[in-house]
Amino acid sequence: VQRVLVTGAAGFIGRPALPALHERGFEVHAVARSAPPEDADTGAEHWHCADLLDPDAAETLIDATRPSHLLHLAWCTAHGQFWSDPANLDWTGATLHLLRAFEAGGGARAVVAGSCTQYDWSGDAIGPSGRVVERTTPRGAQHLYGRSKESTIELLDTWAADAGMSFASGLVFFPFGPHEKVERLVPSVTRRLLAGEPAETTAGRQVRDFAHVQDTAGALAALLASEATGPVNIASGHGSSVSDVASTIARILGREDLLRIGALPMREGEAASVVGDVNRMQKEVGFMPTFDLESGLANTVEWWRSRS
Amino acid sequence: VQRVLVTGAAGFIGRPALPALHERGFEVHAVARSAPPEDADTGAEHWHCADLLDPDAAETLIDATRPSHLLHLAWCTAHGQFWSDPANLDWTGATLHLLRAFEAGGGARAVVAGSCTQYDWSGDAIGPSGRVVERTTPRGAQHLYGRSKESTIELLDTWAADAGMSFASGLVFFPFGPHEKVERLVPSVTRRLLAGEPAETTAGRQVRDFAHVQDTAGALAALLASEATGPVNIASGHGSSVSDVASTIARILGREDLLRIGALPMREGEAASVVGDVNRMQKEVGFMPTFDLESGLANTVEWWRSRS
Repeated sequence: VQRVLVTGAAGFIGRPALPALHERGFEVHAVARSAPPEDADTGAEHWHCADLLDPDAAETLIDATRPSHLLHLAWCTAHGQFWSDPANLDWTGATLHLLRAFEAGGGARAVVAGSCTQYDWSGDAIGPSGRVVERTTPRGAQHLYGRSKESTIELLDTWAADAGMSFASGLVFFPFGPHEKVERLVPSVTRRLLAGEPAETTAGRQVRDFAHVQDTAGALAALLASEATGPVNIASGHGSSVSDVASTIARILGREDLLRIGALPMREGEAASVVGDVNRMQKEVGFMPTFDLESGLANTVEWWRSRS
Repeated sequence: VQRVLVTGAAGFIGRPALPALHERGFEVHAVARSAPPEDADTGAEHWHCADLLDPDAAETLIDATRPSHLLHLAWCTAHGQFWSDPANLDWTGATLHLLRAFEAGGGARAVVAGSCTQYDWSGDAIGPSGRVVERTTPRGAQHLYGRSKESTIELLDTWAADAGMSFASGLVFFPFGPHEKVERLVPSVTRRLLAGEPAETTAGRQVRDFAHVQDTAGALAALLASEATGPVNIASGHGSSVSDVASTIARILGREDLLRIGALPMREGEAASVVGDVNRMQKEVGFMPTFDLESGLANTVEWWRSRS
């Protein structure tokens, strides 16, 4: 039996990753700092509580579970803070330590969640099309978060090749969906409109690659089950402007009247367009998304409505 | 009083770093896995035994010493093995952890030893002059060792700027001198000739920047005492071919008859010339070397003779 250890299992991507891995036939061992979420049929056969920033805890966990596969999603994610959180250094060390312990415990294949912010968003590194290709677009994160992810994954790539372990990274673009942090774009607009309050956004001309988190998690599960190595974009392959997203939510809710696009100032220096090339994801991993923007937002709006 | 914690204090560069820091007025706290070397007037007021790969040990050490300054030299260095040693990942994590603990304990300024192998030695990244400049020559280590050093230092640079801590890295070129590992070029040629045995080398046409380790250590001590931040080459600024080094040793010992230059095959893909630009070291740090190649090798040969 293929036994997978999933870190960050209570997180935004971790939650839908558990059933996606279960459906692929893995025996799923979930790990998080806390007990499993109450509302969830998690899809995990086993739930482990551990703080992976404690090196001994990581070793104890590997010894206890002896996983053949590892999907490492845990990292610091505090909204607004994670970009330059010094905890990024701790997660770099903890990730290197966990992967070493996994390999020493007989682990065969690991996938670590990376980020599209590992690419160089400044200047003209990404062309006007916004298309970002794994082994072509230059790397060059602007913040400690992206730099830490990039360094960690680059070191693991080099080490895994030497150690003969199968390793890939999934560079995650812009997921939205159930359980997203309420401060972020989709939940904040949705919840304002559901409450009958005006929702203010920037002009929102920047184009990004948004994906329903169930597809993000499904693609990561497919990547783990595949034999692809190195970086793989986990994206929809389609660009939508931030204002498109806000307008679509407003239309679904029939509350275009409450939307104030352009009320907030744009941030300086944001890349005009960032869209993942999904050739590797589709052809080498064989994953095709279930949702498009419209159906993904409809599902998400419905979930927030059920909670309001 | 300025109190410095020096890691790797029993190592090749650590040993001469202790008196160099003492002479600059630091209260010197040395740390190594083992007790101080028996033969040494170490220059350290205090010696601490600790394994920095144990995170708790690092924190205990910082709590006990509360250093204002840190010179971090410890890393994996097993001859022939360190290039792709998985322990490079452990030292990456341990270094990030140590620097975080140092800053949290009130530390003001840290210097971490890097390596000239962090630069990109492949293709034409280094021009025909071989001159390597800190913020101009592209980075791109070929092995896990240089990549780990580069990643660690790059993350610390970004973090330190956010945290308001003064941070620099000393990119060490090619030190030789007392206590060097016997398998390396200078000790191996010297000891063969001292024993009256033939010494075989490659054709040795590759040019490198060799420096007496006392100058390497002195420059790192000066860097720590300075306010320079970012990467600083710790080098002589002069290139010598490997065959020049071997011939100079043979001449000093009067045993040119035993030297077999060209008896061993050249390694493929070695950069023709790698010489550190020392503008930052001389002008911003204010350090001038004591030895040239001739006097440095004469000192080293004498030291090995005294031990044979």
